[in-house]
Amino acid sequence: MAKKNAFYAQSGGVTAVINASACGVIETARKHKDQIGTVYAGRNGIIGALTEDLIDTSMDTDAAIAALRHTPSGAFGSCRFKMKSLEANKREYERLIEVFKAHDIGYFFYNGGGDSADTCFKVSQLSEAMGYPIQAIHVPKTVDNDLPITDCCPGFGSVAKYIAVSTREASFDVASMAKTSTKVFVIEVMGRHAGWIAAAGGLAADADNDIPIVILFPEVQFDQAKFLAKVKEKVESHGYCTVVVSEGAHYPDGKFLAEAGTRDAFGHAQLGGAAPVVANMIKDALGYKYHWAVADYLQRAARHLASKTDVEQAYALGVAAVDLALAGKNSVMPTIDRQTDAPYTWKIGAAELKDVANVEKFMPADFITDDGFGITEKCRTYLSPLIQGEDYPPYKNGLPDYVKLQNVAVPKKLAEFKL
Amino acid sequence: MAKKNAFYAQSGGVTAVINASACGVIETARKHKDQIGTVYAGRNGIIGALTEDLIDTSMDTDAAIAALRHTPSGAFGSCRFKMKSLEANKREYERLIEVFKAHDIGYFFYNGGGDSADTCFKVSQLSEAMGYPIQAIHVPKTVDNDLPITDCCPGFGSVAKYIAVSTREASFDVASMAKTSTKVFVIEVMGRHAGWIAAAGGLAADADNDIPIVILFPEVQFDQAKFLAKVKEKVESHGYCTVVVSEGAHYPDGKFLAEAGTRDAFGHAQLGGAAPVVANMIKDALGYKYHWAVADYLQRAARHLASKTDVEQAYALGVAAVDLALAGKNSVMPTIDRQTDAPYTWKIGAAELKDVANVEKFMPADFITDDGFGITEKCRTYLSPLIQGEDYPPYKNGLPDYVKLQNVAVPKKLAEFKL
Repeated sequence: MAKKNAFYAQSGGVTAVINASACGVIETARKHKDQIGTVYAGRNGIIGALTEDLIDTSMDTDAAIAALRHTPSGAFGSCRFKMKSLEANKREYERLIEVFKAHDIGYFFYNGGGDSADTCFKVSQLSEAMGYPIQAIHVPKTVDNDLPITDCCPGFGSVAKYIAVSTREASFDVASMAKTSTKVFVIEVMGRHAGWIAAAGGLAADADNDIPIVILFPEVQFDQAKFLAKVKEKVESHGYCTVVVSEGAHYPDGKFLAEAGTRDAFGHAQLGGAAPVVANMIKDALGYKYHWAVADYLQRAARHLASKTDVEQAYALGVAAVDLALAGKNSVMPTIDRQTDAPYTWKIGAAELKDVANVEKFMPADFITDDGFGITEKCRTYLSPLIQGEDYPPYKNGLPDYVKLQNVAVPKKLAEFKL
Repeated sequence: MAKKNAFYAQSGGVTAVINASACGVIETARKHKDQIGTVYAGRNGIIGALTEDLIDTSMDTDAAIAALRHTPSGAFGSCRFKMKSLEANKREYERLIEVFKAHDIGYFFYNGGGDSADTCFKVSQLSEAMGYPIQAIHVPKTVDNDLPITDCCPGFGSVAKYIAVSTREASFDVASMAKTSTKVFVIEVMGRHAGWIAAAGGLAADADNDIPIVILFPEVQFDQAKFLAKVKEKVESHGYCTVVVSEGAHYPDGKFLAEAGTRDAFGHAQLGGAAPVVANMIKDALGYKYHWAVADYLQRAARHLASKTDVEQAYALGVAAVDLALAGKNSVMPTIDRQTDAPYTWKIGAAELKDVANVEKFMPADFITDDGFGITEKCRTYLSPLIQGEDYPPYKNGLPDYVKLQNVAVPKKLAEFKL
């Protein structure tokens, strides 16, 4: 097998552990210099490939690459850029192949969610059609946890841990104050289509911690009367209540709670958040004093509270992607295959990209309690292992010491390409 | 000195480390059983004293009390209940003395901010006037960091660390995405009157981390044109910008940004947050894609990310309060006296409550940069030591193992008292 260079890119929303996968890819490639030349990274994701804006990762030291394991965000830049279908924009796919050819790239590692799995799949198909061999390997990543086949997606376990811990901590706070002050705390979490992250809020309560939590899932149509009755019941039984609302929570007609008609001073529809809408709704109907939080990027960037399980899986999948490439595989994605729940054991498997692309994994119906506001034991059994273990970053001056790579540009060889 | 019981209560908004002070008080009292009988705690703060709803802390084990050191929130419940002036409601103060007398309480430890320092001061005055001796010791606590004399207030260092770390992490995230997606991230932090917490966001940037941060302090009147120009400048120089906005940021006429005229579907003024208002303002004027977060209770409950310095000071002040009581002191508050900046060294001092009550400490003008949007080196020198060190709680099943005390009620001896 002739020695080829590799291309690695990060796609879509970044996570606390996507760089751990990058670390796994680059460290493993460096161990196989006989078969893999330089690992080039796309600056700002796939756009870096299209515009031939490549980063020479060999310019960064082993220590800097190792530090990626504890650094959140996308070290090379990511992008939200969905490539159109092959039919609609073959030109872009051909450009990718052209850039790969110009830089002698034989391995394409694409680290992302559902859309990037699809892109990865198409690149492998086109490379065959165009007669330039590319081994396209997808490295799974998404806080949304919505990829099929794999037990879970790197990035999700750390968000889940952050939301579970934050929900527990805020609930302790509210419980202290409820007698004379705040009785309801609302926390808004990510997950526009699937309620995996919202479900993690339910882990804040357990056998040792009787915390009254009401969850609003995107999978359950919002019923205001039923919701308010549930909050009232919790406040009456516990003195307070914590509401975890998914940004994707919506009415039966599909309208998001977050879009519930809030207007600014000029009458423009205001993009608020679901949390203030829910909090005001409770105040209006039940009169309870409330506080609300919107975690937004804090949740997916919170490397300081990463799940050790998540970090290990993210790294292992990066390693496995290179191993698959070296084994001659193409159009595949390494997966986490759960062996047992407790203790949680897993091994690395592989899925065909044709089975991954364009398939979304939703919460199973039996993960949500019958009333629609909580998680079942089955859900708990699934989620709990994913938040196990702590993996603290090193600190310097009281703050996490995250790495910033040099990101040295590779000289261009081709004519400019207009996106 | 005859052996007397002690009363301890938590007041106002709770913090990540107020229980560490409780731990210091109770553990130290337990070491002096010859002089201090039982430590009674007020259930839900001072209300517990007024209604004679006392908790017998001796019913909890040494291990449970030790676990308070790593447990956020108020273990005995806190309250927002401001006692009126002695003249306006002497009845309440007399009731306190009556309850103390009934339970043979000679020590009053009150753990709170400015209002509770004032209450504590009045109790000591009245006990003298009424001829029932009470040693009233105030234990400082407030995330707002606005008590005078002491170098800082327990609770603040941990919020500061949380906001500094979160700002850094979210900034790394936005930097990754800025090429094609989010260019401005806005995080709203606590501090209605003083910008101490907002200032801590500025620590996210340092010599190793060139992060473009714009801070909106309550101390600086909001100037929209100047603010937007600053954000534009940062996005143009760095590709992105992070805005830290204090909930107390306001216009020259005193109107909070958070009240900037947002209306719900029915035209009611909506209590939003400052973050969405600022984010929308940027979008409207500059067209940048944004994300925003409101940390709310997450910031003050985040014991998982507490500052070790803060935990140590909170505990030490609890210990010192008992030591002061045993030394016969009255109407005092133990303080943190800074000795040196780097390395940070401090010792315990004491302040007279008459000098503490009703004095608020604001950010000095020379802690804010001339443009009004950043922190000076002097501010950094002050703040940096307060976030040093990590003090992780123990974990169980992937979540912090916080203690819940039994909070056994003491039998009542007096007639009911209407609040």
